[in-house]
Amino acid sequence: MSIRGAYQADNIFAKILRGEAPCCKAYEDDQVLAIMDMFPQAPGHTLVLPKSAGRNLLDTDSDVLAEAIKGVKKVALGVEKAFAPDGLIITQFNGETAGQTVFHLHFHIIPRFEHQPFDRHGLAQQADKEVLHAQAAKIAKAISALV
Amino acid sequence: MSIRGAYQADNIFAKILRGEAPCCKAYEDDQVLAIMDMFPQAPGHTLVLPKSAGRNLLDTDSDVLAEAIKGVKKVALGVEKAFAPDGLIITQFNGETAGQTVFHLHFHIIPRFEHQPFDRHGLAQQADKEVLHAQAAKIAKAISALV
Repeated sequence: MSIRGAYQADNIFAKILRGEAPCCKAYEDDQVLAIMDMFPQAPGHTLVLPKSAGRNLLDTDSDVLAEAIKGVKKVALGVEKAFAPDGLIITQFNGETAGQTVFHLHFHIIPRFEHQPFDRHGLAQQADKEVLHAQAAKIAKAISALV
Repeated sequence: MSIRGAYQADNIFAKILRGEAPCCKAYEDDQVLAIMDMFPQAPGHTLVLPKSAGRNLLDTDSDVLAEAIKGVKKVALGVEKAFAPDGLIITQFNGETAGQTVFHLHFHIIPRFEHQPFDRHGLAQQADKEVLHAQAAKIAKAISALV
């Protein structure tokens, strides 16, 4: 398998960014969009996607990465405030072998709670959309209250 | 458990950054230091640390994060070139519950190879230092040849 490949504009995140597919939006600014993961590994599992096209970290411009990680921090602070987890995992997969399933660069923000196992990526069940929308609203509110 | 806490200047990465503890250095610039993980989850497992003090992503200045992720990209390109993995996982843990063991912000770059399981964080064995130094040299050479 290869980490590399051409960017395909028909991937689901590209469709979401173009408004052609639905999502549970937690945050948006000029640079990034944050949405709830449809197959959450824990409650509050959020994804941060740069708006510009890039397959993964390796083929994405450094300035886009810089703005993306600033977005990750902002959304992580919102997730922390909204869910009060005991820990937060940030992860980003490059290539199918690494666990990447959508080939538009994205960062996972995954809350961790004491004594609560978390589901392996790709093995988690699809979440109820109403639940995800409520979580997204909770995170959005927490982010808007950040100083 | 809490994600938050005061930065402790006696952590091992702070000592390495001050030159008070040894490491297997793969890359260094004004902003970041990249070293081999002593308990690698796969061959080529590298850590990127910002030089400025921060416990994790949540308490680190956005501009420091921006420079750190640029360093992560550079080192990841070096790891890709040096080890030709099938995938690359970037991960960053916040809080002990999330798997953080050293409380100075760092990003893991973990190569993934087809049909090769990888060791869980914290369960991997300590690697031979000669092997790590050779890997660090290989990555350093690959980074210096990047255009």
